[in-house]
Amino acid sequence: MLSKAKIKYIRSLELKKFRNECNAFVAEGNKLVADMLPAFTCDLLLAKSSWMATQGDIPTKELLVAEEEDIRKASFLKNPQDVLAVFQRPTWSLEEVNPTNSLILALDGIQDPGNLGTIIRLADWFGIEHLVCSLDTVDVFSPKVVQATMGALAHVKVHYTHLESYLKEQLEKQVPLFGTFLDGENMYSKTLSSHGIIVMGNEGNGIRPQIEQLIDQKLYIPSFPAERETSESLNVAIATAVICAEFRRRQGN
Amino acid sequence: MLSKAKIKYIRSLELKKFRNECNAFVAEGNKLVADMLPAFTCDLLLAKSSWMATQGDIPTKELLVAEEEDIRKASFLKNPQDVLAVFQRPTWSLEEVNPTNSLILALDGIQDPGNLGTIIRLADWFGIEHLVCSLDTVDVFSPKVVQATMGALAHVKVHYTHLESYLKEQLEKQVPLFGTFLDGENMYSKTLSSHGIIVMGNEGNGIRPQIEQLIDQKLYIPSFPAERETSESLNVAIATAVICAEFRRRQGN
Repeated sequence: MLSKAKIKYIRSLELKKFRNECNAFVAEGNKLVADMLPAFTCDLLLAKSSWMATQGDIPTKELLVAEEEDIRKASFLKNPQDVLAVFQRPTWSLEEVNPTNSLILALDGIQDPGNLGTIIRLADWFGIEHLVCSLDTVDVFSPKVVQATMGALAHVKVHYTHLESYLKEQLEKQVPLFGTFLDGENMYSKTLSSHGIIVMGNEGNGIRPQIEQLIDQKLYIPSFPAERETSESLNVAIATAVICAEFRRRQGN
Repeated sequence: MLSKAKIKYIRSLELKKFRNECNAFVAEGNKLVADMLPAFTCDLLLAKSSWMATQGDIPTKELLVAEEEDIRKASFLKNPQDVLAVFQRPTWSLEEVNPTNSLILALDGIQDPGNLGTIIRLADWFGIEHLVCSLDTVDVFSPKVVQATMGALAHVKVHYTHLESYLKEQLEKQVPLFGTFLDGENMYSKTLSSHGIIVMGNEGNGIRPQIEQLIDQKLYIPSFPAERETSESLNVAIATAVICAEFRRRQGN
């Protein structure tokens, strides 16, 4: 039986404050929950009996059979699905991140949950295991971000830190820092390493100046044909995808 | 003075039915309206006096000075901006589209307004002037799509037609038809022509079978590293961007 207190608890996790306090987050939907279960500790799983009948053992501390109406009360979705789960937030350590031997993405102030979710999804596709985000980047455990990752969050670790200090430290270790700029060099004529950090900026303002000045490899994704007038920029998730694909192509895809 | 009837008229344009009847659509915000004004006929422009003071001649049939409160009543945005415009829908002819000498995108049932807007924006960036959409693709003049194009709609023409019949005709003219599939061939090892049609499918279901069987060039965007398990797919706008970038790279970017 789903108590009012549990509904209230689940709904409170829409807010970062309560996610921090409770160290928990919500994921919804058959595919997403199935993808997340092997990667995160599940505290509470709420599902229709019809869904449960299709599952084997479900690794969760608490399992509640729910009616559609119950799920609707707890859900953040316009069209609630058959299953909703509360997971414990993982502890991901920045110590694990090693941009001297792998490719990392750094996000400087991404605000849109859909963009962050899409970037996590493409990071998974292109084998980028770690994202390092500025403290003002949208919270990865916000329900909208979690839903937009489509399960990729099971394979990608997202860290929050003072990005400027972090990048300074990496620069001292000779880690190449890449970024895309309208006045950068055509990325197709640049050497792209198989390790380093690709920095992507805020939707409206791009990369902040203090961070821009650290970036030693300024890249440009060429528009086509080269001289044509276009709208001013690509969406940040689109630009991230095109640049990641090109880095990976160079590595022999 | 903004009458109640005008507010009602503007708000009615949220629905495709009324956009079709009135042959009109809405765009909002300083940058977007500025980008759209040279490309579309403006019937009505509603703006704060502070905004008007920054403009020269404004090419619109009717110009109304509005208070913030008026714009809020008419606006589709959570955070209304200083200007809102009603434009006439253009008449774009499918006759203009020539995939025997240029690269075209075809969209098979894209449903998400943000995805269509983002695809129009990247089409502009990569110099793709025409999109040909199935009749069940989301309407390009829906306010959410228009806003998501960020002005790129001023440079890209979007056509709606029975896509299967259209693609059959093109195939008879020897136009190469490309599509991305999980079982396609690595796009980096395929010949990509500088003309033809790239077909992208619905967010959940991909390209419908009747259209898939027409596609003679099945491509795959490789994940990295090749054997790794990843989440199942890329977002459709992301996949479109990566494939368009690669077509244009081959053309000498």
